[in-house]
Amino acid sequence: MTTQAPNGADLLCETLLANDIDVCFANPGTSEMHFVAALDRQPTMRCVLGLFEGVVTGAADGYARMADKPAATLLHLGPGLANGLANLHNARRARTPMVNVVGDHATYHLVHDAPLTSDIESLARPMSHWVGRAETADGVGAATEAAIRAARTAPGGISTLILPADAAWNATATAARPTAIALPRAAAPDPALIRAAAEAIRAARRPTLLATGLALRDAPLRLLDGIGARTGARIMAQQSNGRMQRGAGRVAVDRVAYVVDQAVASFAETDLVVLIGAKAPVGFFAYPGKPGSMLPEGCRVLDLAAPDGDLVAAIEALAAELGTAAPRLAARQRPDAVRGALTPDAIALALARHMPAEAIVCDESVSSGRDFFRSTAGAEPHDFLQLTGGAIGIGIPLATGAAIACPGRKVVTLQADGSGMYTVQGLWTQARERLDVITIVFANRRYAILHGELTKVGAGKPGRNASRMLDLDDPALDWVKLAAGMGVEAARADSAEAFDDILAAACRRTGPFLIEAVI
Amino acid sequence: MTTQAPNGADLLCETLLANDIDVCFANPGTSEMHFVAALDRQPTMRCVLGLFEGVVTGAADGYARMADKPAATLLHLGPGLANGLANLHNARRARTPMVNVVGDHATYHLVHDAPLTSDIESLARPMSHWVGRAETADGVGAATEAAIRAARTAPGGISTLILPADAAWNATATAARPTAIALPRAAAPDPALIRAAAEAIRAARRPTLLATGLALRDAPLRLLDGIGARTGARIMAQQSNGRMQRGAGRVAVDRVAYVVDQAVASFAETDLVVLIGAKAPVGFFAYPGKPGSMLPEGCRVLDLAAPDGDLVAAIEALAAELGTAAPRLAARQRPDAVRGALTPDAIALALARHMPAEAIVCDESVSSGRDFFRSTAGAEPHDFLQLTGGAIGIGIPLATGAAIACPGRKVVTLQADGSGMYTVQGLWTQARERLDVITIVFANRRYAILHGELTKVGAGKPGRNASRMLDLDDPALDWVKLAAGMGVEAARADSAEAFDDILAAACRRTGPFLIEAVI
Repeated sequence: MTTQAPNGADLLCETLLANDIDVCFANPGTSEMHFVAALDRQPTMRCVLGLFEGVVTGAADGYARMADKPAATLLHLGPGLANGLANLHNARRARTPMVNVVGDHATYHLVHDAPLTSDIESLARPMSHWVGRAETADGVGAATEAAIRAARTAPGGISTLILPADAAWNATATAARPTAIALPRAAAPDPALIRAAAEAIRAARRPTLLATGLALRDAPLRLLDGIGARTGARIMAQQSNGRMQRGAGRVAVDRVAYVVDQAVASFAETDLVVLIGAKAPVGFFAYPGKPGSMLPEGCRVLDLAAPDGDLVAAIEALAAELGTAAPRLAARQRPDAVRGALTPDAIALALARHMPAEAIVCDESVSSGRDFFRSTAGAEPHDFLQLTGGAIGIGIPLATGAAIACPGRKVVTLQADGSGMYTVQGLWTQARERLDVITIVFANRRYAILHGELTKVGAGKPGRNASRMLDLDDPALDWVKLAAGMGVEAARADSAEAFDDILAAACRRTGPFLIEAVI
Repeated sequence: MTTQAPNGADLLCETLLANDIDVCFANPGTSEMHFVAALDRQPTMRCVLGLFEGVVTGAADGYARMADKPAATLLHLGPGLANGLANLHNARRARTPMVNVVGDHATYHLVHDAPLTSDIESLARPMSHWVGRAETADGVGAATEAAIRAARTAPGGISTLILPADAAWNATATAARPTAIALPRAAAPDPALIRAAAEAIRAARRPTLLATGLALRDAPLRLLDGIGARTGARIMAQQSNGRMQRGAGRVAVDRVAYVVDQAVASFAETDLVVLIGAKAPVGFFAYPGKPGSMLPEGCRVLDLAAPDGDLVAAIEALAAELGTAAPRLAARQRPDAVRGALTPDAIALALARHMPAEAIVCDESVSSGRDFFRSTAGAEPHDFLQLTGGAIGIGIPLATGAAIACPGRKVVTLQADGSGMYTVQGLWTQARERLDVITIVFANRRYAILHGELTKVGAGKPGRNASRMLDLDDPALDWVKLAAGMGVEAARADSAEAFDDILAAACRRTGPFLIEAVI
């Protein structure tokens, strides 16, 4: 194969590799066979199969959040992209960099409206920051570079590149091989915005600095907290964030509450919110008679840095302007073993006891995991990755990608059972790639959050039809068997003692493991 | 709850029920809670939960193909719709009637761009024939009626109705309760087209009548075959069809081959193709150096009836014009038990032996099931439902919906393993609803079709990266455990004898059962 002229698919692979994109999460089909063959000629590209496209895109999200660089994905035509859209939605909200390659029919075949034909652009646009199409083999190089540039424009973007089969299989005329493109730089801090924010913070009675993105890494959080310690400003993170560094020896930052009444109460006295790459807090959903904005009337909102800005430089500039005191760092707190009934709180405390240093926590625990955050401020230092767009089915894939980005680090997935079923196929990829992931399934056998929401919208007590749509107990899912069916060892815990024992053992071994926590 | 004023969600439910739509496949979220509450007030509506939206839309497809009327679906915002799109794509290609209800944020909440906000219309359009949005509670009635009308316009359409939360929860001012709308009628045959087709058939040397849709039911097929017997015209079905009636005592009709060379060869001598709701045959994919159209140069193509026409009336008119001879009906052929290695052919023969009369066969066997069609022309009479759009992951959901439409009939799913993993969650719905479905998993532990396609596109022998993307054997999926994890009994067969025994037993019992056929 090495003697043939490079085709469009080869050019695509080479352009990805030249730009340090060397992991491709994939579920290919016929129209992508030349791209598969081209990947086959590039042993430095790591190809990771997902048995469903939601696994593919969710894993690419988890990978990029931890690697701080994009992975590629390989998706089969419109339906393959469609299957990956929900997790692309989450990645878009996390501002994760990603380069999706979506195959299409050969350009001249589209006129036939063959069965798999669909309007790929219309599907891609809502969940992408950039959508493009390579019309010819030679055009693949520039299109791929544009996709990479968009993905790597701060704070990160979803690029979707449509690759017609003939653009992949035709020979290129290009003799030059691709080299790394110059990456766009995040916008430097605007001195006027910094001064205005500093002045407003000094003048405010109850200011809050609301951060997300790169501002939530260890070093900038220390600086932010130093500003808080000096000025009395409160430091908060968005409700959902792509990645946050926390635990013992780090700053413990609260997040905006999910529940509207709690969020509104927490901002009731706030007269200034300074946004650091963040959005002003709004309700996750609308509820009859409740506000959409979480901020009180008259609360001033200022941008310290827009999402595309250099957040770390902006924080440094603000610190220079306001001065800092010593940041308040969390002490290591190892709770005692909990006994008795297995509750979400007992699970959180066991994690605080046993999670090893530098663990990566992927949180899709939905209603069951609300105790985790509070109980683990003094756990060993860890990275905390969230469901950012509300599209359930990201926990298992996110962990899969994070584990591929960070070999040698333990990954822990906090997984609600209803959401876990969405992309349960990801367990197979964890088994195949021998990934060091512990999946904790919160088996409450219902969409518990929806029981709460049904009450909140004033819709009354569930009858038969509502219960049939909100409960998962008939039959109960057997997660130990599901995991075993995909090659992942598993155990069930139905008491706090059993959970503590199983978790301790799982933390001592490596490789994928699942704990069904019956709560 | 009965004393409160009907809200928009109530109006939606009442409009569906007034129009004989009384099954709702659902996976709701917060923004649909008032619709859930409204469904709860309507005990005549059957709500069926799918643990993933691909199950929901695929089941609605299977239901409507067998019930000859639409089901409703309930999907949560853009990502919930996105998860259901691949099977909507298949349903769109099958021309299945369906009314999707997609919740959205309250109208006044959209401005906040809350995390789950997305462009639902852009996602819906490629896979829908009709997309609409109810802006107010009182507008829900007319919007739902428009959705139903579009779904029931021949040959059937995908309607996607977006329901903002406040349009659902606000009280209606409408006192009148909805009544059934007048359904649009399929276009009557065009006498000029009928005469032209008849004349062309008489004049042609090797005419083919190519049919799909309602033309593939028992009675019109007899008539079509009678025309064939009289005139020498060949009767064929499209490569993929939503539903076809076949088996002993019925006409055995060939389908256009999937493999390009075979399809081209079968039309090599054809000088006339008369389309009966069908499309002129094209390649499923493009391949370098192979044609897109399967018809020879100079072959004449005529419409007897367009897809929106009354296909049965058109066939009757053609029969009146040309006359008919006796149709050639398949005799019941019960093959002997096969012994030895378990092959796709052995599975097909066992099905021909044991499948009970009026079974419903849902075929997503991809490459492994190509023997089924040939070997079962003399099986007990059955309905045959296919993957129509090439988006894998429909087999298990399709069977789920068909079983709900036809209690008392045995449903048999021919399920490739790679495709089966896409919507494996559907097994749980089969267990919960106690559906009489036998799922046969063709466990070849690879995307076998893609191995073939890799060769066909001239991409060479798979190396490590290609194998890692096309093989499913490391680890092998344990389908017996997967099924048990979702409450479905299962057994593994690795010889023809074992398969024959297990299938015979499964045909004697009722309720969901899975056979992992290791081939």
